[in-house]
Amino acid sequence: MLTSKGCGARRQVLRDKFRDCDLLIISQPHHVYYLSGFLPTSSELVRWWGLNFLLIDKQGEVRLVVDNWGEAYADKAYVDYRTIWTWYDFSHPADDKYAAASQALSNVLGKHYSKCSKVACELSHLPVAALDALDSSEKVDLGPELQVMRRVKHEDEMACIRHAIDATAAGHLAVREILRPGLSEMDVYVEIQAAIANAACEPILMLGDFAGGKRTQVGGGPPTRNVLQEGDLIILDLFPVIRGYRADFTNTYCVGEPSQEQIDHLSILQRAMDVVEEALQPGVTGSEIYEACCAPIAEAGLGEAFFHHAGHGLGLGHPEAPFLVPNSKEVLQAGDVVTVEPGAYVDGFVGARIENNYLITEQSFERLSHHEIGL
Amino acid sequence: MLTSKGCGARRQVLRDKFRDCDLLIISQPHHVYYLSGFLPTSSELVRWWGLNFLLIDKQGEVRLVVDNWGEAYADKAYVDYRTIWTWYDFSHPADDKYAAASQALSNVLGKHYSKCSKVACELSHLPVAALDALDSSEKVDLGPELQVMRRVKHEDEMACIRHAIDATAAGHLAVREILRPGLSEMDVYVEIQAAIANAACEPILMLGDFAGGKRTQVGGGPPTRNVLQEGDLIILDLFPVIRGYRADFTNTYCVGEPSQEQIDHLSILQRAMDVVEEALQPGVTGSEIYEACCAPIAEAGLGEAFFHHAGHGLGLGHPEAPFLVPNSKEVLQAGDVVTVEPGAYVDGFVGARIENNYLITEQSFERLSHHEIGL
Repeated sequence: MLTSKGCGARRQVLRDKFRDCDLLIISQPHHVYYLSGFLPTSSELVRWWGLNFLLIDKQGEVRLVVDNWGEAYADKAYVDYRTIWTWYDFSHPADDKYAAASQALSNVLGKHYSKCSKVACELSHLPVAALDALDSSEKVDLGPELQVMRRVKHEDEMACIRHAIDATAAGHLAVREILRPGLSEMDVYVEIQAAIANAACEPILMLGDFAGGKRTQVGGGPPTRNVLQEGDLIILDLFPVIRGYRADFTNTYCVGEPSQEQIDHLSILQRAMDVVEEALQPGVTGSEIYEACCAPIAEAGLGEAFFHHAGHGLGLGHPEAPFLVPNSKEVLQAGDVVTVEPGAYVDGFVGARIENNYLITEQSFERLSHHEIGL
Repeated sequence: MLTSKGCGARRQVLRDKFRDCDLLIISQPHHVYYLSGFLPTSSELVRWWGLNFLLIDKQGEVRLVVDNWGEAYADKAYVDYRTIWTWYDFSHPADDKYAAASQALSNVLGKHYSKCSKVACELSHLPVAALDALDSSEKVDLGPELQVMRRVKHEDEMACIRHAIDATAAGHLAVREILRPGLSEMDVYVEIQAAIANAACEPILMLGDFAGGKRTQVGGGPPTRNVLQEGDLIILDLFPVIRGYRADFTNTYCVGEPSQEQIDHLSILQRAMDVVEEALQPGVTGSEIYEACCAPIAEAGLGEAFFHHAGHGLGLGHPEAPFLVPNSKEVLQAGDVVTVEPGAYVDGFVGARIENNYLITEQSFERLSHHEIGL
């Protein structure tokens, strides 16, 4: 989990950027978590989206505003004050939770922060109704700054990402055991979901591509009833959300024995991965990584078959900066966590993708994912 | 899935309520889906929260504003126009998605709806930044009206709920097959998750209570590594989100042979359920249902052990109106879908809960859930 030290350090960075503001209001759940450690279970995020707020005043004192259903999670958050407001008490009908949450924030602002002349908030996320109490204050947007901050990961974030990667590795391991003709993509999905949830030991939000047979030619998609045949490939790109953070790594598997053409196809992608690893270090731009990834694929005559990014940043969101794409001038820096994912998808033949996750270090990189790549 | 007819009928109801408005803006994902059928897979909802918009003008023409990653889902929505804006094109770094979505809405409002003098929107959900283009318009809140509308379910919604209930039944069925000493709550969770996803044939968002052994005494909670012993009870309250709608029904199971005391405990809850079914019909209030549910439990001397609601409305959210609680004057009406869930949790002994889902009909009710209740 995120730590008190990490959350405090991130709040300090944010406060330094908005030194002239009397109050910072955080509303996006990812960011409330990032700065306070407040996190319902991942799969519950859907129920909690945008209903809780983090307030940071000029002295750095931190208040979490959470409804009574979130109290147990709020108790574990790294904050100075908690305002727990009653949404639903099992005794009276509950109001619309969005309206009630906005009202609760308005109440807190009116009570504790009414004399703020300049407020920084997530203007593209904070609801209109929540700001009633601060009508006369100047508002500035802190959303973009948070996006920038999120790139370089702190130690506690790395622990979360490593935990997500370890659990996701169990999903890839399970595939090797179960894959056989007659399974559907859904069968594979449920086995992987089970393996990852069991490894993480908590309900997880399972996202990913589960595309087998002809569906590999388009590169991805959610699982279907499509039944795998002997000799089919299946692209398994697993990006579950675990404790708020994501892993995101891929392998392409063969059902039964792969053909020589399939093996050759995958080895082109492996070459692309190797070339990227030679280039991967601080100071390199996203477009340079993209070009490095493209070269071996294009040399093999498959330039057209690689139609997506060479990778992207990884953390609370997906995808996020830095983007490893043709027109990215973003410069890699120590602390970036990125995926690298060469792929080639050929109409009438097969598609395949492989992917690893990396931490950019002062000198070069540390590979974070250690699953077995290969058909 | 929701139908064109259903979405159109719901839009008509909403338009009638806001006849004096030039434009309706819908931003909550549940409500965009409810009125247009636009729905990414359930588990992807987390990625899409609050980033897409539905606009309904005075003539009833409907426009969906969606970023390019949602285009395939937008194609299936029941709308007249689609504005697909480019968020991330695999070629340039992507902007913060929240900021970009607000900007996209602002652009659309400026281009197509600049002459609106009165706009209805979800004030407790729509971000501050999205409204820049309509600064001079009068704004009214349509959020509360949507909450009211959601109570009485349409035919297409009932199809979604029945589908969710059918899939969830597969989860309860799986428990009977697998439950044995030595399994952890997590083991049970992954088997249930797999059974329901397989039955639904799509990735689902799995929510529920998985509380075994001593944990039954507090009534619920997410699964843990807690290992089930011979004679333990486990409360399995399953409420996955499938195609945007929820099922929500419970049984308490015994690992091995139940004791006579455990059987007696559960039969009290079954009596409470029977008494509620005698009362369940249009015209009855939430508090009357609550009292009906309480009576047999209190008669058995367990009044204190039943500390939560007798049930609640069910649909896109959880919980929602009508609330079956002591202070609810909400009157049941035909078309309401409710859960009824008597429970009793005794410190130092056991806790148990059972639950069914019901559609309120013109005369009485139809029971929607058909899982086997009993230890």
